[in-house]
Amino acid sequence: MSGQGFGRVPLPGLPRRVVVHDVGPRDGLQNEAAFVPTAVKAELVRRLYDAGLPSVEVTSFVLPEWVPQLADAEELVAALPGDALERSTVLVPNRRGLDRALACGVRRVAVFASATESFSARNLNRTIGESLAMCAPVVARATAAGATVRAYVSMCFGDPWEGAVAPADVVSVGCRLLDMGCSELSLGDTTGVATPGQVVAVLDALGDAGVAVERIAVHFHDTYGQALANTLVALQHGVTTVDASAGGLGGCPYALGATGNLATEDLAWQLAGLGVETGVDLDRLVETSRWLAGHLGRPSPSRVVAARSAGRNR
Amino acid sequence: MSGQGFGRVPLPGLPRRVVVHDVGPRDGLQNEAAFVPTAVKAELVRRLYDAGLPSVEVTSFVLPEWVPQLADAEELVAALPGDALERSTVLVPNRRGLDRALACGVRRVAVFASATESFSARNLNRTIGESLAMCAPVVARATAAGATVRAYVSMCFGDPWEGAVAPADVVSVGCRLLDMGCSELSLGDTTGVATPGQVVAVLDALGDAGVAVERIAVHFHDTYGQALANTLVALQHGVTTVDASAGGLGGCPYALGATGNLATEDLAWQLAGLGVETGVDLDRLVETSRWLAGHLGRPSPSRVVAARSAGRNR
Repeated sequence: MSGQGFGRVPLPGLPRRVVVHDVGPRDGLQNEAAFVPTAVKAELVRRLYDAGLPSVEVTSFVLPEWVPQLADAEELVAALPGDALERSTVLVPNRRGLDRALACGVRRVAVFASATESFSARNLNRTIGESLAMCAPVVARATAAGATVRAYVSMCFGDPWEGAVAPADVVSVGCRLLDMGCSELSLGDTTGVATPGQVVAVLDALGDAGVAVERIAVHFHDTYGQALANTLVALQHGVTTVDASAGGLGGCPYALGATGNLATEDLAWQLAGLGVETGVDLDRLVETSRWLAGHLGRPSPSRVVAARSAGRNR
Repeated sequence: MSGQGFGRVPLPGLPRRVVVHDVGPRDGLQNEAAFVPTAVKAELVRRLYDAGLPSVEVTSFVLPEWVPQLADAEELVAALPGDALERSTVLVPNRRGLDRALACGVRRVAVFASATESFSARNLNRTIGESLAMCAPVVARATAAGATVRAYVSMCFGDPWEGAVAPADVVSVGCRLLDMGCSELSLGDTTGVATPGQVVAVLDALGDAGVAVERIAVHFHDTYGQALANTLVALQHGVTTVDASAGGLGGCPYALGATGNLATEDLAWQLAGLGVETGVDLDRLVETSRWLAGHLGRPSPSRVVAARSAGRNR
């Protein structure tokens, strides 16, 4: 780990090591209006692995009509070296997407559902029950093919249409996804409104329902500046997998106000200072985000990238 | 407290109430190149009190040649109503500044020193020992005149020239300031590099030295995105006074890369979600920061102000 140098002081109760799952290539790029060339996407993935990220979500096998930016999913996966493919996840919205992914040799897929009916209706155009019913055969087929399945649960804390979300609703959806055969739940704060007490309440509710904390990842958005504090309390409660996006790009294109994934750099800065191992080389990661920002034509919203790009504090 | 509505879930071990000390009018405006009219400054202070802030740092009685922006300190203080003056703090860099402040009826002043020799030399042009020797008669005269004195300690965690700062250095400077008669220490992360383990280490070291946690405030900058997580662990360790700046304006003009105080709105969002009382009306505060951003001609760096200004999630 390079690039910090302002001290490394552990905090009791934190895990020794955290797995950072970088969703930037998928979640960060899917909102881009101008098509990003496949070669740039492939280089982004390669650079993220070179910077030490253990796990990257590279694309979504969604219908090209829905997200034209990701219409090159096959080409992108084909451009990855074999060792990168083994560690990469792709999103699959349905059976057809899964079949496309498996045909490319993908071994790790992700599905998604919402904890609230309002967001399910708006994002997926179906009820929670209908979306879970659609997920079940996808998960079954994926696991039968030897792939592992991560499950995203959106709107786990607050929903712009419904307000506060009951932890029981997250437990209900989460347990059904695990029962189907998903190996991991990623708890999404889709509009970035959560505060740390809500995070603990949801983790406690899942624990009470018998879900092992090893199966839980957190996925916070920084829309209201809360992502890193929320992550910290999740780590204090045993979570060891954290989703973030290189440079802080992305969010959900269907959720109002949902700009701003937690920047991987801001997370990596905190974990390095806390002496928590991530394997991430912060300098290389910042350089990657600056390179990508050049391609996208606007600065990264990451605080660390901005501070480092000013060439200061080195 | 209005303006949240996404749930209020306490976290065990947090204080019931936090005093937010808004440094925006002083620390936020002192870096502005174009002179902000005194009437705008006075309206900013009035709006902050109307938004429920219990304590505001309104200006600095520094030599006008040093900070021309604050050359109107007397006029600004004279423009405050009596009840606002009682709750307001002003910075006084030296005896002359103190005398000017006392002559205006100010009852709360603040002094400052650095925990590192490098920053002391660059910011104050004197050693730590020399700056404390200069502080002592200022503090003595202020307390003799019945004023209370808050003390800022800069560079408490990491320093761009020295790297990690030893907690013992913070204790040494802090205890000398308290021994002089200062009533409160505000621990500054002047370049925003601190991570939560360092915060706890400094708080523990001060506690071991016999400093009551009630006398400690925290002052984090968000340069590296860490301010809110650092604040949270400070609250978990008993701190109940937090410095922040409306709209996230400001920083130290003499410290490289020191842009970005913690935005009062981002703090207020977290505390409201945690059910910690602050008295702050978030809607009025956001409105104030938007009004000020209009005067300054650029958007607020606060995540909450940005999210709210997009008119979403309401």
